[in-house]
Amino acid sequence: MELPSRKLTLAVEQIASLPGIGKKSALRLALHLLRRDEERVEAFARAILEMRTEVKPCSICNSLSEGDMCGTCADPLRDERLICVVEDLRDLLAIEAIGSFRGRFHVLGGLISPMDGVGPGDLAIDGLVRRAQGLTSGDVDLPPEVIFALPTTMEGETTAFYLFKQLQPTGVRVTTIARGVAVGDDLQHADEATLDASIRRRLPYNETGDR
Amino acid sequence: MELPSRKLTLAVEQIASLPGIGKKSALRLALHLLRRDEERVEAFARAILEMRTEVKPCSICNSLSEGDMCGTCADPLRDERLICVVEDLRDLLAIEAIGSFRGRFHVLGGLISPMDGVGPGDLAIDGLVRRAQGLTSGDVDLPPEVIFALPTTMEGETTAFYLFKQLQPTGVRVTTIARGVAVGDDLQHADEATLDASIRRRLPYNETGDR
Repeated sequence: MELPSRKLTLAVEQIASLPGIGKKSALRLALHLLRRDEERVEAFARAILEMRTEVKPCSICNSLSEGDMCGTCADPLRDERLICVVEDLRDLLAIEAIGSFRGRFHVLGGLISPMDGVGPGDLAIDGLVRRAQGLTSGDVDLPPEVIFALPTTMEGETTAFYLFKQLQPTGVRVTTIARGVAVGDDLQHADEATLDASIRRRLPYNETGDR
Repeated sequence: MELPSRKLTLAVEQIASLPGIGKKSALRLALHLLRRDEERVEAFARAILEMRTEVKPCSICNSLSEGDMCGTCADPLRDERLICVVEDLRDLLAIEAIGSFRGRFHVLGGLISPMDGVGPGDLAIDGLVRRAQGLTSGDVDLPPEVIFALPTTMEGETTAFYLFKQLQPTGVRVTTIARGVAVGDDLQHADEATLDASIRRRLPYNETGDR
């Protein structure tokens, strides 16, 4: 499909370079942008460029921030001795959306995946271990805790096991989020692995263990 | 869902303003762009901006072009007395892709749709009528022809009827693309409207009427 202009072709190629957007969708989006006022397209391009130049990883938790430290790490009301480890920002946002978690986060930026050439050195693991070391030097009664909120895939479990081995010497308590039948779901419609997890990891009735 | 940075929020809002892209996809695309090198994101933003500032409607056919006239209108080998009218550039590209049409085009830029507030004045109709008037002042034997390649929707048929009334006084021959059972398709799987069109608009065996 030869387009009638080189500049249009370049823009379509750029849009189609985004994941999940094919050539046809890219052309549709380019034609949409062509119909917009020039100022609106400038605002569009500027917003993307400014995001790229001004949004950086938080120096503590590897989430995103415009300053050196993200809002969560800067919040003195959040328990710095309770760190929830997530794969990426979207998982962090999902947990933040529930509104009840008052600890902090650590964003790995991916999972260990030898198939995709992602090793521990590509992820924000050293920073997590340093954070855990810093916590255990404190002298509070309640032990510091690292919660794994990682996917139950091969990569997720490989990553969790590697992190556990790294964190063990620091003395933090390491936990993982509960897996089980979703709240409100029928047991008969749960998949076998989920139902198995629900039964194996059963809790004393009335015990919730909230922190 | 509150994002950890205002610049990220702005970029996600801009991406989500594109048709067919929801908030979640927009965040996924923004996080993808954040992982790219800054130069690549600059090239992305620049390509879109340059497309918007440099790609203009062709002054003759309303297709797109970087100069005053598009490549098709500037091509002396294409029959200027045979004009195919399409709704938008994507339909033009579909016809160009077959490689056999040697006439020119006229891109309406939409269809008449009172429901959506689109009237004849919003479309490139005056230019088409002027082109048709210019052609009929010539003195060649073969009459000039305008082919409607418009959708068989209410809007497409309303537009075709309006165009026909406008073009009639110019004396051009007005035709519409054939509708019928697709080449290679089973008759038993064709929908009724298509099969009906195939039979009503049957042709003498061996007549193709190619131009």
